Amino acid sequence: MSANRQFDPDFTPYVINAMGPKVPERTRVILGSLIKHIHDFAREVELTPAEWMLGVEFINSIGKISTPIRNECHRICDVIGLESLVDEIANKIVTDEGVTPTSNVILGPFWSPNAPFRALGDSIIQDPNPDGKVTFMHGVLRDMETGAPIEGAVLDIWQASANGQYDFQDPNQSENNLRGKFRSNEKGEFYWYCYHPTPYSLPTDGPAGVLLNVMDRSPMRPAHIHLMITHPDYATVINQIYPSDDPHLGIDSVFAVKNDLVVDFKPKTDDPKASLDLDYPVKMALKKHHPNPNSAPPVSSFERFSKSKGQQQQQQQQKL
Amino acid sequence: MSANRQFDPDFTPYVINAMGPKVPERTRVILGSLIKHIHDFAREVELTPAEWMLGVEFINSIGKISTPIRNECHRICDVIGLESLVDEIANKIVTDEGVTPTSNVILGPFWSPNAPFRALGDSIIQDPNPDGKVTFMHGVLRDMETGAPIEGAVLDIWQASANGQYDFQDPNQSENNLRGKFRSNEKGEFYWYCYHPTPYSLPTDGPAGVLLNVMDRSPMRPAHIHLMITHPDYATVINQIYPSDDPHLGIDSVFAVKNDLVVDFKPKTDDPKASLDLDYPVKMALKKHHPNPNSAPPVSSFERFSKSKGQQQQQQQQKL
Repeated sequence: MSANRQFDPDFTPYVINAMGPKVPERTRVILGSLIKHIHDFAREVELTPAEWMLGVEFINSIGKISTPIRNECHRICDVIGLESLVDEIANKIVTDEGVTPTSNVILGPFWSPNAPFRALGDSIIQDPNPDGKVTFMHGVLRDMETGAPIEGAVLDIWQASANGQYDFQDPNQSENNLRGKFRSNEKGEFYWYCYHPTPYSLPTDGPAGVLLNVMDRSPMRPAHIHLMITHPDYATVINQIYPSDDPHLGIDSVFAVKNDLVVDFKPKTDDPKASLDLDYPVKMALKKHHPNPNSAPPVSSFERFSKSKGQQQQQQQQKL
Repeated sequence: MSANRQFDPDFTPYVINAMGPKVPERTRVILGSLIKHIHDFAREVELTPAEWMLGVEFINSIGKISTPIRNECHRICDVIGLESLVDEIANKIVTDEGVTPTSNVILGPFWSPNAPFRALGDSIIQDPNPDGKVTFMHGVLRDMETGAPIEGAVLDIWQASANGQYDFQDPNQSENNLRGKFRSNEKGEFYWYCYHPTPYSLPTDGPAGVLLNVMDRSPMRPAHIHLMITHPDYATVINQIYPSDDPHLGIDSVFAVKNDLVVDFKPKTDDPKASLDLDYPVKMALKKHHPNPNSAPPVSSFERFSKSKGQQQQQQQQKL
């Protein structure tokens, strides 16, 4: 092979500049950068035709398994760390003085807009599971700069049951089991009963499972409790809260573990309703510190249906 | 927003290094580079959650429309120039002295392994089209270094009819209409009757059409004749041969035009069977000059069925 064999340096700019005059500037920037990076990748590894065709068939397989309640491309993005990265780009907050709020992480595909409001002190456990360890979870919301308590924030919590399944994955759970919205009181306090979380595997019967297998990686997620906190004056905080003794903390299949979200569950002996206690203090940042104060959290168009609606859609799909 | 807000420089290496010890080295190189470039893209454009989710839904839509005879991801790759780039990486030949063979371009999704052998001087037109302009196409295969004629090469030609459709897209064409294989004679000569080619549009009813529209680009391909030339001693040549007066040469939707493949069709007056004449000389390189002499041309697993088999599969799909 000759040293003369260099690739045409004008090809990638030619492809990018083929975009016509009607393309909005932001679209041109995004697609131009995407094409450049895909071409650079192909040249960097000298991608062969057979390898390229393997990738083509893999991408075709992603859409084939997706349904209105299964978003396989969302899951593939999680497996390659892209959702975590997009979250960091959108939501990372740090002041000039280096002050930071409680870390934000990805929403994941199991949030529901339909969780009911419950009173402070209530339990989110509608369908008790014999393996569930009931936890009294509590904390105070504070302004990250002044330490002042934050009243009237909405805390939206959701978690899988002790079998590792969320309500809309499991026919034995009622809608909104292990989901609930609470409001912080005038002291910034919140408290409720939930379960110690349970680790679970991503679904491995589709392309995400193939990719994890090819990468010799575990499909497991460490146990976690999801919590989204919203307030008119403060930047939204999306958390996943991990027990410090979970064996999967270092191998999270979706790269959503952050150190300040790893917590200790302690034995509780003074409460007949709970065997564990979790103290979870939260620091929030005023919206002015957010890189884009008006940005909405990422919401997938999939897997966000209420249980009954999801089942209806599945049944409709099966009929088609 | 603070200048402190830089993205975690350790995140991308952390994701790449999550690959386990059983990953083959080539797989590790490819996936590592792909993840790095996807992350670099997201940081470079500061991809928002909403933009990311738009991309997620776009990728899901690619597989949804693909079938055993429609490979939409292959087409998307063509539209972003990736198949052309992979072809250049795999097949570009240039000697230390700067000698090059006739340019190679992409195979495209319409080649069939089933084209019949025909005798030199035969026509590939099985189903005449009233708009077709019959062309006497001929040329000599020569070694690019010595100029010696190449005997016994197989020339596999395929083209769309005057309506812009290939045999297996068009119920009015018989199988292998406008396809054929020929062998060069002892003088390196080849000659046959075919049509002056007709420009056509990529299918625009799927994600490739959406992407072309977003990029404000034409879905048209310039008119072309496909030709694949194979020989035991010479590197395979895959051509698309373009009339020099085609108005789409500068806007080819799949970026497969190369200057030495643009040719002049001349009026022919001495042959009652043809109104046009095309002289197409070809220079071939010994296999030793090819970057990977044993590499096979890219063959998709889709859209390569014989017409009858393709229809059977389509019918089976519809039943499922």
